Amino acid sequence: MTDVLKVGIVGAGGYTGAELVRVVHAHPRLELAYVAARDNAGKRLGDVLPSTLGAPEIANQVLENFEPEAARALAGRLDVVFAGLPHGTSAAVCGALLDQGLQVVDLSADFRLKDLETYERTYGKHPRPELLERAVYGLAELHRAELAGARLIASPGCYPTSAILPLAPLLRAGLVEPRGMIVDSKSGVSGAGRKPGPATHFAESAEGIRPYKVAGRHRHTPEIEQELGLAAGAKLNVVFTPHLCPMTRGILTVAYARRKDGVSVEQCREAAQNAYTTPLVTVLEEGRLPDTLWVRGSACAQLAYEVDENNDMVLAMCAIDNLARGASVQAVQALNVSRGWNDGLGLPVLGQFP
Amino acid sequence: MTDVLKVGIVGAGGYTGAELVRVVHAHPRLELAYVAARDNAGKRLGDVLPSTLGAPEIANQVLENFEPEAARALAGRLDVVFAGLPHGTSAAVCGALLDQGLQVVDLSADFRLKDLETYERTYGKHPRPELLERAVYGLAELHRAELAGARLIASPGCYPTSAILPLAPLLRAGLVEPRGMIVDSKSGVSGAGRKPGPATHFAESAEGIRPYKVAGRHRHTPEIEQELGLAAGAKLNVVFTPHLCPMTRGILTVAYARRKDGVSVEQCREAAQNAYTTPLVTVLEEGRLPDTLWVRGSACAQLAYEVDENNDMVLAMCAIDNLARGASVQAVQALNVSRGWNDGLGLPVLGQFP
Amino acid sequence: MTDVLKVGIVGAGGYTGAELVRVVHAHPRLELAYVAARDNAGKRLGDVLPSTLGAPEIANQVLENFEPEAARALAGRLDVVFAGLPHGTSAAVCGALLDQGLQVVDLSADFRLKDLETYERTYGKHPRPELLERAVYGLAELHRAELAGARLIASPGCYPTSAILPLAPLLRAGLVEPRGMIVDSKSGVSGAGRKPGPATHFAESAEGIRPYKVAGRHRHTPEIEQELGLAAGAKLNVVFTPHLCPMTRGILTVAYARRKDGVSVEQCREAAQNAYTTPLVTVLEEGRLPDTLWVRGSACAQLAYEVDENNDMVLAMCAIDNLARGASVQAVQALNVSRGWNDGLGLPVLGQFP
Amino acid sequence: MTDVLKVGIVGAGGYTGAELVRVVHAHPRLELAYVAARDNAGKRLGDVLPSTLGAPEIANQVLENFEPEAARALAGRLDVVFAGLPHGTSAAVCGALLDQGLQVVDLSADFRLKDLETYERTYGKHPRPELLERAVYGLAELHRAELAGARLIASPGCYPTSAILPLAPLLRAGLVEPRGMIVDSKSGVSGAGRKPGPATHFAESAEGIRPYKVAGRHRHTPEIEQELGLAAGAKLNVVFTPHLCPMTRGILTVAYARRKDGVSVEQCREAAQNAYTTPLVTVLEEGRLPDTLWVRGSACAQLAYEVDENNDMVLAMCAIDNLARGASVQAVQALNVSRGWNDGLGLPVLGQFP
Repeated sequence: MTDVLKVGIVGAGGYTGAELVRVVHAHPRLELAYVAARDNAGKRLGDVLPSTLGAPEIANQVLENFEPEAARALAGRLDVVFAGLPHGTSAAVCGALLDQGLQVVDLSADFRLKDLETYERTYGKHPRPELLERAVYGLAELHRAELAGARLIASPGCYPTSAILPLAPLLRAGLVEPRGMIVDSKSGVSGAGRKPGPATHFAESAEGIRPYKVAGRHRHTPEIEQELGLAAGAKLNVVFTPHLCPMTRGILTVAYARRKDGVSVEQCREAAQNAYTTPLVTVLEEGRLPDTLWVRGSACAQLAYEVDENNDMVLAMCAIDNLARGASVQAVQALNVSRGWNDGLGLPVLGQFP
Repeated sequence: MTDVLKVGIVGAGGYTGAELVRVVHAHPRLELAYVAARDNAGKRLGDVLPSTLGAPEIANQVLENFEPEAARALAGRLDVVFAGLPHGTSAAVCGALLDQGLQVVDLSADFRLKDLETYERTYGKHPRPELLERAVYGLAELHRAELAGARLIASPGCYPTSAILPLAPLLRAGLVEPRGMIVDSKSGVSGAGRKPGPATHFAESAEGIRPYKVAGRHRHTPEIEQELGLAAGAKLNVVFTPHLCPMTRGILTVAYARRKDGVSVEQCREAAQNAYTTPLVTVLEEGRLPDTLWVRGSACAQLAYEVDENNDMVLAMCAIDNLARGASVQAVQALNVSRGWNDGLGLPVLGQFP
Repeated sequence: MTDVLKVGIVGAGGYTGAELVRVVHAHPRLELAYVAARDNAGKRLGDVLPSTLGAPEIANQVLENFEPEAARALAGRLDVVFAGLPHGTSAAVCGALLDQGLQVVDLSADFRLKDLETYERTYGKHPRPELLERAVYGLAELHRAELAGARLIASPGCYPTSAILPLAPLLRAGLVEPRGMIVDSKSGVSGAGRKPGPATHFAESAEGIRPYKVAGRHRHTPEIEQELGLAAGAKLNVVFTPHLCPMTRGILTVAYARRKDGVSVEQCREAAQNAYTTPLVTVLEEGRLPDTLWVRGSACAQLAYEVDENNDMVLAMCAIDNLARGASVQAVQALNVSRGWNDGLGLPVLGQFP
Repeated sequence: MTDVLKVGIVGAGGYTGAELVRVVHAHPRLELAYVAARDNAGKRLGDVLPSTLGAPEIANQVLENFEPEAARALAGRLDVVFAGLPHGTSAAVCGALLDQGLQVVDLSADFRLKDLETYERTYGKHPRPELLERAVYGLAELHRAELAGARLIASPGCYPTSAILPLAPLLRAGLVEPRGMIVDSKSGVSGAGRKPGPATHFAESAEGIRPYKVAGRHRHTPEIEQELGLAAGAKLNVVFTPHLCPMTRGILTVAYARRKDGVSVEQCREAAQNAYTTPLVTVLEEGRLPDTLWVRGSACAQLAYEVDENNDMVLAMCAIDNLARGASVQAVQALNVSRGWNDGLGLPVLGQFP
């Protein structure tokens, strides 16, 4: 219990950065020792995130302008770095840090896809393709063994987390058809990042819900397919429909999968309960459906299942906080598991309600 | 152009009532002559709906306590009555008014379902079953001929409107499989009505999106099935998933239907364009997806189609304002058509943006 | 009743532009004949404002790139132009149109301040100072006589409208001390305009209310002081505190003024009722306080008064829709009055509730 | 560091109860050992607050129906009880617990007012007036010495917290006139409690800001006056204007006080910095104004000052989270101080942003 890891955050000025700061600060075995953010380099963290002003030891840290060449200087100073950078940029940064012996948790998409061709079709040229095989997909519930001791963790995307958690147990248990599954997801506006644009203007977000990048055009589609394919034991495709919903945080996913003969809702629920034994995934009791409000700020995912008997369809539902379980808190959960600690060590497990 | 109809609204104190008042007031051939609301009887409309205070001739009308026995007294005074009452209650009221020779537009579910057994399984005993065959389902785009001269109009439900408009043309044209369609709908909180309850508390609605009454439990399911069955020419079932979304107005529906061999998105769009020739339904151009914000307060529905080639799935999407196109404005549209007027006469066709 | 004015809107792609389009379209004596918007020139209005798609005669109009030199070409085509441009830019445009004999309603600040020095201290160099004396401040309730036949109307700012309407009658009637009045105003986010920025990001606007440009730094301060000074018959200063509030539309102002000896709330209410005789300003009855929700989308302002007996303070309160009564609808009201029509001709007088 | 206090919460099913559960759970020296809630007695906490499902040791606790007679049974089991009950009811409960030797932190108004007559004029008959003198007003920054060892703590109201923190230092330092101060406050909807009603319906709260109980009618007025009177060293009155603002959490207060001769903004800021030496109150730097979003979920209050030179007026501003700093987190802060611990021990000091 004596060791405390020195933590760096590269990309600390955005929403996932803010959430990382909050979680690292509350964690008994992590200490924030370095923050970087290109656009705000030279400012104090408290200027960019006034939410930190109540903790002067955090707020007074000065944001640095991290370049990959500077990785060497961090070698002795830090134990682990969280990278919250755009894809493409992130791989080079993570690679440089890894080369210096630092443990890296990457919140971008750069190391999530195992197949280089799929990556490059989706995101463009990969700067460090040789690292793909060393990366572990950081969904602790599904990759626990691989995470032990992992030095490069690819923290899952927000939408994929909300789709994989409810569907993987059904596929593993052979309860649903792996073909033709539909993933209908609704995300809060913070998922679009901190940079302002027309789609995130309050006056054009409030009172409006809209689908976007439907029919396979969203880049999270292959990530969902990879992990659900692993669970099913065979390649598969999904129909993925993301929506922007007028709220700040949260993702609600309702996934539709054709049930195999006579499968009951109890079987679905049991499969999930057996798959998830830590309290960070809750399988809701019969009659209760998930709500993003109940997991706001929390490490927990809430799952529920229903069967539409007239249509032989299983509804697999999941609510998470996109910035917490869907990004920063999950990244720390993966670190916890990589270090042999409890999944939930130091994490917010209660939602902030209301 | 000389005639003006005298209009009554029974149930004027709720949200659909408020929207009816707004639309009737702006309509060049309708004059609000009678308002009733049980809970607020004796108050002036302006006390219950201070949004009307800018029109004293409206605001100063006193809400009466309408009972079916009072129908006779309205016989000479009114031409048409809109009833915005709970199902079960509404049928008796509408029947009494109809018996007195008044034209009735019912916004409840009481006359929407053609099959008595389905009605009673869904809603309970029907007080005036003999009227079912006289009622016309008030979706003008699909029942134009029947609406001409109709004396009893059953104005469609909000969710059904958003599901039927995008799917009916595909089914009529035989472009999609009628079996196993999924209707995933997200509604604003006003859809739950004006009576306060835990689910509509601001603090428990903001920042939360949640599914409810899934897997066939929502009462709008048979209504959707009836109308889509008519379009398909055969009985069918749908998976219907309603959600409560943190906004006041609007419904966004994304429906999923398996395409028939090689059907293209252009074919889907064309089918809809051919089906809908008034400007009250807009089929969006390629690359644009619907947004509830764009139809706020408007009579218009916005439709869009996409095909997921990897999964042979058609996405049929629709945005409406649940209180306007999904209820009160659509009710006046149906009246317009019943009188031989243009669909859009006097209706708000521009959305209130932002 | 035969004439219809041909209307142009310069700056049609922003929020006040959108609201102008909505109001002009509904007006029986105005016809939208020309739209311009620099950033979106060449696009159809329906591409920039999909809320107009239900009215193809509007949506299909192509946005032009208006430059002052082009004013001559509009001379014969249009009767009146509404300019929704940034201050500084607007004066040159309005001047060029005026030079061609067009009537101009300017929604910018360029012609609101009568005193050139105050203008230039607040906004910078004025491009057409010689026009200041020709401009009429377009608050119809206070400048009715001057508006008759006016060719250059300076439509009031949103905050000033909400401050002047409740306070002017008290000052005119000598019921309150003109010194040291406080105007505490809360505006919806649309008041910040359509251009995205950090302050209007949904994730940083929802769940946050914040004051900004307090203590005399907001440019609407001298405008409020000018008009209240006119009402009081002497120069005065006010403490003006604007806030950004997590809603799209609306301004609520609570103003505090020291009452003169023994003034009662009834005297305040009476002064306002006597001052405002059209239904576009409602003085609420005792016991009711204004709410921005009740005037959403409406031409109406709702006023209320209270007296704090322990502190000899009058509270003068006002709710308006910042884009409607606070900008575009009020601009058309001023045009109505300039033409000798009723204030409310063609305007939305009912709020869109909820 | 060995001792852990056993904590009970009476009234655990409401919003302040939920927030207490969250804070107690995260606190290293508190252990939740008892929960009661009249309306939900017999249910598990996880049924009433599904936000707790990620912590089964919390979620599985069964809510009891606490009656004052049951206090004896708690005597040995608990060290401290937080009471989140309506005023009037609370005093009897707190008294019974106190009689059994338990430490009590009361979140109601029952023990906040020192003057019985003022209490009874405001709230009605007091059930245990003899306890008033034993109660300590739990604003740690102002009553630190009295809190040491206190057995009955009256945790401050949300509005008073936001008014007293920014104004007290100015009054103590004699920088402003104590007469005629104005407190204009805007609260999130959660401040109205969990019980649903018309004023908290999402559809009637979103897009609306409204003042209520103005001109001395809000019950928090005498509480503000008591504490500011103590700071000023003389009785005083304030004009207090509360508003309901369309957000879930947060209170922003802008208070206006007439400055004494030549007082500068730097003097105001210094007075506050000297008064508040823990990081739980942040005096913002020049040029930055408070925002409720920055303190969401946090123990911290953010203060700012401005001087309006033209009007000799000081603006004293404060943002807090009404449920956190304005209620439950502050209650635990007071307990911390009563036990000799650091103010911020175990408390959330970072805001949850965004």
